[in-house]
Amino acid sequence: MTTILISGLGLIGSSLARMIRQSTPTARLWGTDPDEENSRFMLDNQLIDERVNFEIGAAQADIIVLAGPVSVITDQLRTLTTLTLKPDVFVTDVGSTKMAIMQAAEPLMAQGVAFAGGHPMAGSHQTGSAAGKIALFRQASYFLIPGNASEQQIKDFKALLAPAEFKWVTVDATQHDQLVSTTSHLPHVVSATLMNVASEQLEGEPAWRAGVAGGFRDTTRIAAADPAMWTAILADNKTAILNDIDVFSQALAELKVALEADDQAKIYDFFATAKRTRETLDQS
Amino acid sequence: MTTILISGLGLIGSSLARMIRQSTPTARLWGTDPDEENSRFMLDNQLIDERVNFEIGAAQADIIVLAGPVSVITDQLRTLTTLTLKPDVFVTDVGSTKMAIMQAAEPLMAQGVAFAGGHPMAGSHQTGSAAGKIALFRQASYFLIPGNASEQQIKDFKALLAPAEFKWVTVDATQHDQLVSTTSHLPHVVSATLMNVASEQLEGEPAWRAGVAGGFRDTTRIAAADPAMWTAILADNKTAILNDIDVFSQALAELKVALEADDQAKIYDFFATAKRTRETLDQS
Repeated sequence: MTTILISGLGLIGSSLARMIRQSTPTARLWGTDPDEENSRFMLDNQLIDERVNFEIGAAQADIIVLAGPVSVITDQLRTLTTLTLKPDVFVTDVGSTKMAIMQAAEPLMAQGVAFAGGHPMAGSHQTGSAAGKIALFRQASYFLIPGNASEQQIKDFKALLAPAEFKWVTVDATQHDQLVSTTSHLPHVVSATLMNVASEQLEGEPAWRAGVAGGFRDTTRIAAADPAMWTAILADNKTAILNDIDVFSQALAELKVALEADDQAKIYDFFATAKRTRETLDQS
Repeated sequence: MTTILISGLGLIGSSLARMIRQSTPTARLWGTDPDEENSRFMLDNQLIDERVNFEIGAAQADIIVLAGPVSVITDQLRTLTTLTLKPDVFVTDVGSTKMAIMQAAEPLMAQGVAFAGGHPMAGSHQTGSAAGKIALFRQASYFLIPGNASEQQIKDFKALLAPAEFKWVTVDATQHDQLVSTTSHLPHVVSATLMNVASEQLEGEPAWRAGVAGGFRDTTRIAAADPAMWTAILADNKTAILNDIDVFSQALAELKVALEADDQAKIYDFFATAKRTRETLDQS
C-alpha cells in the first residue's frame, strides 16, 4: 500500500488529497498542518486517514508532498536531510516560486533522495481545506521541474493527480520564476494597485461602486487574494518581480508620453498590439 | 406614434434598438450608420424600420439617440442646432465621456431643446450591430446627466429601455468623467500594458501561454477591446486619465520601494487594503 504524506492542507494540499482519493482509493493519506481547523476538516471528511507528526510521517511515507508556503517548504527540505527516509521515496512540492526551493533541495538530492519541484497554476481568493476542490484545478497547467526524480516516479505522481487532467509543462526553475512573475505576480500587484487607486481617487464619491462595469470587476478580481500569501510570494520572487515592475512602469510611462503628445498612431499601436497578443491567448 | 432615431447602430445603439423593440413594439425606429453592414443587419432583422438620412430623420423624430463615437456626437449636437426639430423632441447620447458632450450640447439646450447625457456601463471586445444584445446590459449601471430634460422625458426614456433593468445613476459630467477614468479607462490602459509586458518579457518562451492561470486571463480580458475606440476614448478623457496614470504609477513606485526595502508590513498593508476594498465591491 502506498503511503502519501501531504504537508500543508490548505487550498492546494487539500485539493491534491481529493484528487488522490479519487484516483487511488487504496492509498493511505497522511496529513500535517499547523491549523487545527484544516486538520479537523480533512479528518472529518475522510480526506486524510491520519494527522501525523511531520518527521514521523516523512520517515514512513512513499511519497511526500510539501504544500505549505515556500519558507516552510525550504525548512522542511532541510529537515528531510536529517531523517532516514524510505529508499524509494519521492519528494515533491507545490510552492509558488521554484529557484529557492530547487536550491534548498540540492543537499537532499545529493543524498540520493528523489525530488521534483512542482507548481499547479490555479488559485482562488479563498483559502483553507474547505475551499479546496478538484474543479478549481481542472485542466490547469502544472509546472514541473524534474530534479533527480526518475521518469517512473514522475509518471506515478501524475497518475495520482489524474482527476484534475492537468496540462503538465516541464520547465527549469529560472524559467518558472520569470513566467510566474510576469503572468501571475505582476498581475496581482497591478490588480491591487488599481483597487487602491480607485479608493484614493473616488473616496467620497458614493456613486463609484454602483458604476463599475464588468471590466473593472474582472481586472480587480485577484485583488481579493490573501495578503499574507502575496506578501510572502513577493519576497520569494523579489528580483523577477522588481524587474517586471520596472518594465511595466516604463511601458505605462511611454503611453503617458504618447497621450500627452496626442500621438494617436502610437496609442492605437499600443492597444492593437495588446489585442493581438490577448487573442493568441484564447487560441492556446 | 413615437418615432425614435438612433444614430450609430454599433454594439450600444443596436442593443438599445432591441430594448425598444421589446418594450414598445408600436414605436417607429429609424437608424443611421455609415457602416453598410450594420445598417443592413438592422433592417434584415427588423431592428429598425428604416435607414434614414440623419438631418431628415432628426427633424421628424420624437426622440433622438446619439450612439456614435464622442467626436461624432459632438458634431451631431452642432448639426442639430441648425435644424428645425419637433417642439417636444428629447435628445440624448450614450458617449463614453460626458464633459465634452455636455459642453457641445449647451447651444442646443440654449435653443430650448431638451437634452440629457447618458452612458450605459457595459461593453464587449466585440463590436457592431450583430454583437449587440439586451443581456449584455442586463442590470448594468446607466449614468445620466439630466441636462435640461424634464422629469417626464427622462421617465419615458427609461421606460423605453426597461428590458435591460438598468440601474440608473444620476451624476454630473465632471463626476462621470473621473469615475469612468478610474474604473474603466485606467483599467483598460493597465490591462493592455500587462499584455504588452508579457509579450516583451516572455517572447521566445514557448511555455508562457500554456502556463497562464485564470487570474491573468481575467486581468487581461479587456486588453482585447477595440483599439480605435480606446484611442478615441483616451483622447476624449485625456486630463482625467493622465492624472489617474500618475496616481497609479506613484502607488506602484511606492510598492516597489517597499519590496526593495523588504518592508513586509507595508506590502501586507498594500494587499490587505486592496482586498478590503475589492470585497466591498461584491457587496454592492
